Amino acid sequence: MDAPIGVFDSGIGGLTVLREIMRQLPNENTIYFGDTARVPYGSKSKKTVLKYSRQIVRFLLTKKVKAIVVACNTASALALEEINKEIHIPIIGVVEPGVLMAAEMTETNNIGIIGTSSTIKSGMYNEFLRKVKPEITVVSKACPLFVPLVEEGLWDDRITEDIAARYLCEMKEYDIDALVLGCTHYPLIKRLIGREIGERVKLVNPAYATTQKLKELLEHKNLCNQKNEKPVHDYYVSDGPEKFVTFADGVLPFTVSETKVIDIESY
Amino acid sequence: MDAPIGVFDSGIGGLTVLREIMRQLPNENTIYFGDTARVPYGSKSKKTVLKYSRQIVRFLLTKKVKAIVVACNTASALALEEINKEIHIPIIGVVEPGVLMAAEMTETNNIGIIGTSSTIKSGMYNEFLRKVKPEITVVSKACPLFVPLVEEGLWDDRITEDIAARYLCEMKEYDIDALVLGCTHYPLIKRLIGREIGERVKLVNPAYATTQKLKELLEHKNLCNQKNEKPVHDYYVSDGPEKFVTFADGVLPFTVSETKVIDIESY
Repeated sequence: MDAPIGVFDSGIGGLTVLREIMRQLPNENTIYFGDTARVPYGSKSKKTVLKYSRQIVRFLLTKKVKAIVVACNTASALALEEINKEIHIPIIGVVEPGVLMAAEMTETNNIGIIGTSSTIKSGMYNEFLRKVKPEITVVSKACPLFVPLVEEGLWDDRITEDIAARYLCEMKEYDIDALVLGCTHYPLIKRLIGREIGERVKLVNPAYATTQKLKELLEHKNLCNQKNEKPVHDYYVSDGPEKFVTFADGVLPFTVSETKVIDIESY
Repeated sequence: MDAPIGVFDSGIGGLTVLREIMRQLPNENTIYFGDTARVPYGSKSKKTVLKYSRQIVRFLLTKKVKAIVVACNTASALALEEINKEIHIPIIGVVEPGVLMAAEMTETNNIGIIGTSSTIKSGMYNEFLRKVKPEITVVSKACPLFVPLVEEGLWDDRITEDIAARYLCEMKEYDIDALVLGCTHYPLIKRLIGREIGERVKLVNPAYATTQKLKELLEHKNLCNQKNEKPVHDYYVSDGPEKFVTFADGVLPFTVSETKVIDIESY
């Protein structure tokens, strides 16, 4: 089935999820929407995030997507459940698959979670983790400066290392053996985080687990695109296409040739 | 005249301008609006910033403000001129007064400007400066990490110092004697910036110059509030009132007792 997979995020972080989809599902056409006019979602209320997510889903449905991936932690936690009841195509988020993967990987049952202030404050990962494996202890830490540092391109910089050392020093006192990268920007500084937290701790990238789940879902529902020599990848944003393209070119394996700006508030 | 002065910004940075108004014009009632749901404006297009600014001005007019201060560099540069033609009360921004003050202060005619990426990229300060004093040479530098660092409260931190050193090292090679703090967040790290750039360089805070201009304007139009024992300061945001209050309490001389959330998109 050659209908595209819709992927959306509040901005550009979700491109790490898109990258994983391109890697694991190379036959699929995709449509990415980054809500660059209204980023970040993390500081916004549930009501606002739900409203914005509904608008984006309506836009993606006009593009006849066959499935939607919410490549944004905040929208996954605050809007996914409601929207799932309202539409008739599969929709998955990044939080649950990341949690399941972490729960499977841990042997000490001590898991670390890092994310933006709002993700950590919401307790969304803790809540899911406790449901899945109540014996797990969660150590969480907000790392609010990671997103601006990643967006500034300081992926392997002394300043980012310095800040990572500060954010992660407390966490190192706990016997964690898995650390969930609870923000879509963090896989881009995965190596730096890995060096800081130490090699005994496995890093859990929810983008990987989410794409695995998407793959299973498409196979199960017979929605896979079996053959596609030239997959089409379309990009839409709500503002600032230049910054988007610059960042996307650093993240994705393909060059982004065109990014269309749409008025998302009209959806 | 006891009508309030309206002050708006894309978020919380404009509070440094409000603080200056409270200091220089202690008899005035004020209404602050922070567009925390749609922050930042810097990455948004002129069309979007103009649309958002118009909505905020319409909101402030429902509160019967007697004058408006655009306490946001982006909105000052992109929306002020148009809106000034559309309304019948005085409206001033932060860019022009800052520029005039810098032009007056410099003796070497070499001026430095720091701001967000979009402020620097827009060239707004350079353009104004060249109009005012064509012989001036402008050295500009985007400092995109200062805003998240300030919002994280790292006002006097080694990491902020480290980043300031990196941002300002090039600028130190020029013979500047005035440095414009071209972002409303930067006065909060004024001392740290001053230490880094050296005492020979005067720091220009546009909030100060803007309030001076506002004062002259109110006097000239006979709009001053002559006596007011209990000035009223009201705060409105479009989202996330808790974060706003926490930050405001660190910036303002008064405790913020209540912040109302409004649906700015309905204006």
